Amino acid sequence: MTQKSSELIEFLRSLRAVRDYTPEPITEGDIDDMLEVGRWSGSSSNRQPAELVVVRDQAIKQKLAEGGVAPAARASLAFVIVTPGDPATREREAFDDGRLVERLLLAAKACGLGANIGSLKGEGPSVIKQALGIPPERRVWSVVTVGRIDEQARRARAAARAGAGRKPLAEFAHWDRFSA
Amino acid sequence: MTQKSSELIEFLRSLRAVRDYTPEPITEGDIDDMLEVGRWSGSSSNRQPAELVVVRDQAIKQKLAEGGVAPAARASLAFVIVTPGDPATREREAFDDGRLVERLLLAAKACGLGANIGSLKGEGPSVIKQALGIPPERRVWSVVTVGRIDEQARRARAAARAGAGRKPLAEFAHWDRFSA
Repeated sequence: MTQKSSELIEFLRSLRAVRDYTPEPITEGDIDDMLEVGRWSGSSSNRQPAELVVVRDQAIKQKLAEGGVAPAARASLAFVIVTPGDPATREREAFDDGRLVERLLLAAKACGLGANIGSLKGEGPSVIKQALGIPPERRVWSVVTVGRIDEQARRARAAARAGAGRKPLAEFAHWDRFSA
Repeated sequence: MTQKSSELIEFLRSLRAVRDYTPEPITEGDIDDMLEVGRWSGSSSNRQPAELVVVRDQAIKQKLAEGGVAPAARASLAFVIVTPGDPATREREAFDDGRLVERLLLAAKACGLGANIGSLKGEGPSVIKQALGIPPERRVWSVVTVGRIDEQARRARAAARAGAGRKPLAEFAHWDRFSA
């Protein structure tokens, strides 16, 4: 049984999106670790509907950036999430997609890397499906970009949006009864 | 900058749903920790569309169990996730819901507790909205149950479904190009 760990809570609580990366590549070991964490993501009835494509090719990363995921242009790699695209289960696929990308973000942080979740817009999904050989009926929408953190750019960006935090606990959590 | 940590990767990789709980209550400190991790969950454009209701009342937990979330009956508490319910953003709400519940599961594990994600079925969402005073237009669907782990019941359940693992890496991750 796991013991209570305030370090683990702080690890989870302090996760932030990182969009600024250095050109330094990331290791195969880190990629393997992130994939193992992703592979063990939970899904309803253990159906495991999600797969992903590991994108390292700069031309494809550029296409991802043009498709709405700007940080892909400077990322070491991007994970493109692929789900079945069944119209009857779209919401559940989006839900499982959300669970998977959150874990990939945390796995990147565990490796000391920065990661961000972006979503493809407009023609982005079609362009990327064609570029990666993904069948057209599949659902492709979210993309996790990963790279070594560019601390200087990150600090500048953070300063530019000072004050962007989270709403207070009383507006997030309701005790025993919702109060609209 | 966070250092690479194989303990953190193992923490993330080893998360499993836990449906068997002892009657022992969980502490206010653990609840606060889980809520803080939930409150800091990311959302697109930091819109923070998700809220939750902390349910400790046994009669409501019973209603959750009848609505499709069986483990709620024996859980110390249940988090009922509430999103705006805007028909134009249903998929995005499901995605943000997925990100939030995954973090709550990990936060429970960090506290040494067990947690499970369930979803309300049939009349479940309407019944629960009425019981908790949630406006009818809001989206209520997923429920995270939390409690102290009943190790004995858990082992018995695990033995009953031996072999339930995950598909091999080659079926989850595709390198550079998807192969259907």
